[in-house]
Amino acid sequence: MKNKRVNDLSSMPVIIGAAGVAGQTEGKGPLSERFDYVFADDGMGENTWESAEKALCRKAFETATAKSGLAYEDIGIVFGGDLVNQCTPSAFGLKDYGIPFAGLFGACSTFALGLALAAVFVDRKIFRFAAAEASSHFCSAEKQFRMPLEYGGQRPPTAQRTVSGAGACILGQKENGVCVKKVMFGRICDRGVTDATNFGAVMAPAAADTAAVFLQETKTSPTDYGMILTGDLGKVGSELMTQLLLEENKIDISGVQTDCGNIIYDDVCQDVHCGGSGCGCSASVVASHIYRKIADGETDNVLFIGTGALMSPLSSLQGDTVPGIAHAVLIGRKGNCV
Amino acid sequence: MKNKRVNDLSSMPVIIGAAGVAGQTEGKGPLSERFDYVFADDGMGENTWESAEKALCRKAFETATAKSGLAYEDIGIVFGGDLVNQCTPSAFGLKDYGIPFAGLFGACSTFALGLALAAVFVDRKIFRFAAAEASSHFCSAEKQFRMPLEYGGQRPPTAQRTVSGAGACILGQKENGVCVKKVMFGRICDRGVTDATNFGAVMAPAAADTAAVFLQETKTSPTDYGMILTGDLGKVGSELMTQLLLEENKIDISGVQTDCGNIIYDDVCQDVHCGGSGCGCSASVVASHIYRKIADGETDNVLFIGTGALMSPLSSLQGDTVPGIAHAVLIGRKGNCV
Repeated sequence: MKNKRVNDLSSMPVIIGAAGVAGQTEGKGPLSERFDYVFADDGMGENTWESAEKALCRKAFETATAKSGLAYEDIGIVFGGDLVNQCTPSAFGLKDYGIPFAGLFGACSTFALGLALAAVFVDRKIFRFAAAEASSHFCSAEKQFRMPLEYGGQRPPTAQRTVSGAGACILGQKENGVCVKKVMFGRICDRGVTDATNFGAVMAPAAADTAAVFLQETKTSPTDYGMILTGDLGKVGSELMTQLLLEENKIDISGVQTDCGNIIYDDVCQDVHCGGSGCGCSASVVASHIYRKIADGETDNVLFIGTGALMSPLSSLQGDTVPGIAHAVLIGRKGNCV
Repeated sequence: MKNKRVNDLSSMPVIIGAAGVAGQTEGKGPLSERFDYVFADDGMGENTWESAEKALCRKAFETATAKSGLAYEDIGIVFGGDLVNQCTPSAFGLKDYGIPFAGLFGACSTFALGLALAAVFVDRKIFRFAAAEASSHFCSAEKQFRMPLEYGGQRPPTAQRTVSGAGACILGQKENGVCVKKVMFGRICDRGVTDATNFGAVMAPAAADTAAVFLQETKTSPTDYGMILTGDLGKVGSELMTQLLLEENKIDISGVQTDCGNIIYDDVCQDVHCGGSGCGCSASVVASHIYRKIADGETDNVLFIGTGALMSPLSSLQGDTVPGIAHAVLIGRKGNCV
């Protein structure tokens, strides 16, 4: 018996509060005016980079909750995660609200995973309200995964820049609004890539797998969507995903695919090589820019495919491959939300 | 509006396959005969401790799936996690089955969290079958959280030993069997403890909070349960939890409470100080020993409270507290499973 992979959420849980916040560099990029809050400097008034990431997490979660009009105790569960060892920014960032907490690790796919789980929980009436949150910070990630910042290591052209940012969505039952219509949980894809400075190549096969299954099972084509929004394949990964889908599945997503990592920085003025990445990239972009585009009627039915590279610095040192994963969330309008 | 914290799973999803596997030391303990498989040495035939943990993960998952009679493609989703940075043992261990994967981080509470999520997914018909898996390995954890093994660091009397072990449960709809009746997701409790060698003290307040809310909301008393099974508070934490519930909630759990970390090692012959810990402790004990006790009619209605310490070595070095969390899963008999 083969499982149906795409889950219809017939009640279409509505995102009743959404917020994306960003750091200094991201705040100078093209989405500057779209974020709910931009920190003036990347220290966020904290003593460590990890604490700065907690501040990102809190700002996103508190802003989203305030917008939802709920009290913290109304929220049944918050799904949260990040890139740092043992996910401490999320746990420490969310610990004081008294909300039941489920910690996730999905690398850069964490926000899509959390959004999918929160939507399932609201749709199936486990809780009336549920939340998703994810964060990353350029400095905590560099320290964690690559070199100490002070070392000034040179990055290869395929490298993406970890976004300092966070995003949060509060979901609930409501007649109108921006809603989650379908979710699909991804399977791990490993095509043997070992280059941990080329996450685009790692995650593209997973993104292509998820997109192909989603489109085939729902009998839809790419042009049925306002946007196929990956997060975050960057330039290399976006090209590879497009190529893979064309060659292996005869699916053409060119013209429909956009990547959170490709739109968060300015290609000319901000040279970040292959684009943005990190849990906070798609989290901050989806919870601000994309949410608003749908709410404002500029687009609809965004197939958000959150992609993650499931590795650690140690697994790479030990010669392991870098497997990828991609979870899909279909976000669109419900009722007369425009 | 205050949320109901305890979720009734009216269809009572049945654990149709369960397996707990263990390492060499655990295999010499009192539960030796209860595990589904005991590895002859802690290298598990692998080159690194992290790969050894992957082997634990795979053995538990494959054995549980075989017992369930399912093919891998029948399983809609697997919730998995561990203690290692970026949860690589779970991702690498589970990557080749082609099953949609949701990575969790809940420290030692991971198995309870995964079991609760898998049960919710089956109860609410997201998938017909869902799985939970969690692992830990003494050597990968020592290396990750404390000292290199070769250093031979002395452990304080309050320290617990990370279990080399893994557990997996496959859940599905069935008329008879050992089932999940209720779940409750925990909130983070932080009473300011900073001693990362005393996880019992860290997690006891979270365990007490979850137990108190569960008992109060379900209007039940400790003696209504065959067992209040914590995992893993060890000796210090078990005493503290009992004391906290008595002093703050007038609830007496003495005589009813058992801790996975207290029963996995022999107190006299195996001096592991305060007991066992690690995601693999409660995972291996619940999926073998406890599952069998319920299936064999020796006990019923086990209130399993999985406890976790949400910290990293870095957060402790930076002077942060160690917050705790505890998720509850009520496991009991359904129909004539004896």
